Amino acid sequence: MSKSVFYHAGCPVCISAEHDIIELIGANNVEIVHFGKDKSRIAEAEKKGIKSVPALVTPTGHVLHINFGASIQDVKG
Amino acid sequence: MSKSVFYHAGCPVCISAEHDIIELIGANNVEIVHFGKDKSRIAEAEKKGIKSVPALVTPTGHVLHINFGASIQDVKG
Repeated sequence: MSKSVFYHAGCPVCISAEHDIIELIGANNVEIVHFGKDKSRIAEAEKKGIKSVPALVTPTGHVLHINFGASIQDVKG
Repeated sequence: MSKSVFYHAGCPVCISAEHDIIELIGANNVEIVHFGKDKSRIAEAEKKGIKSVPALVTPTGHVLHINFGASIQDVKG
């Protein structure tokens, strides 16, 4: 199975959700992308349909926006 | 490990997220609660802090609001 990808921006809501997702699906099943550390991945996330972070993209490409930390526009700014 | 609980109201956003969650964490690890079939669980969900559906409550009691199908107020109405 290909991995899920969890996108976040380091905000408190993001970090809390990151812990929950890792507990739920296992660290080996999810790639964590932190926009603060890798801005080059923002365009990729937008292409996948991400409107806000934290968000999880499933192996089948579905976007799950989880709670609300920041809009993707804020992350770009 | 105790189970997560996924609350939803049968809306298209809910059903899509339900499929994703089951694929991600496994049907055996999550109880599915459909408010349309069991309105008595709405009060329980509100007590846990659920503001909208679909939402997942983790075994540690954290609420993950996933995308947005309907507010809990709409579900009650």
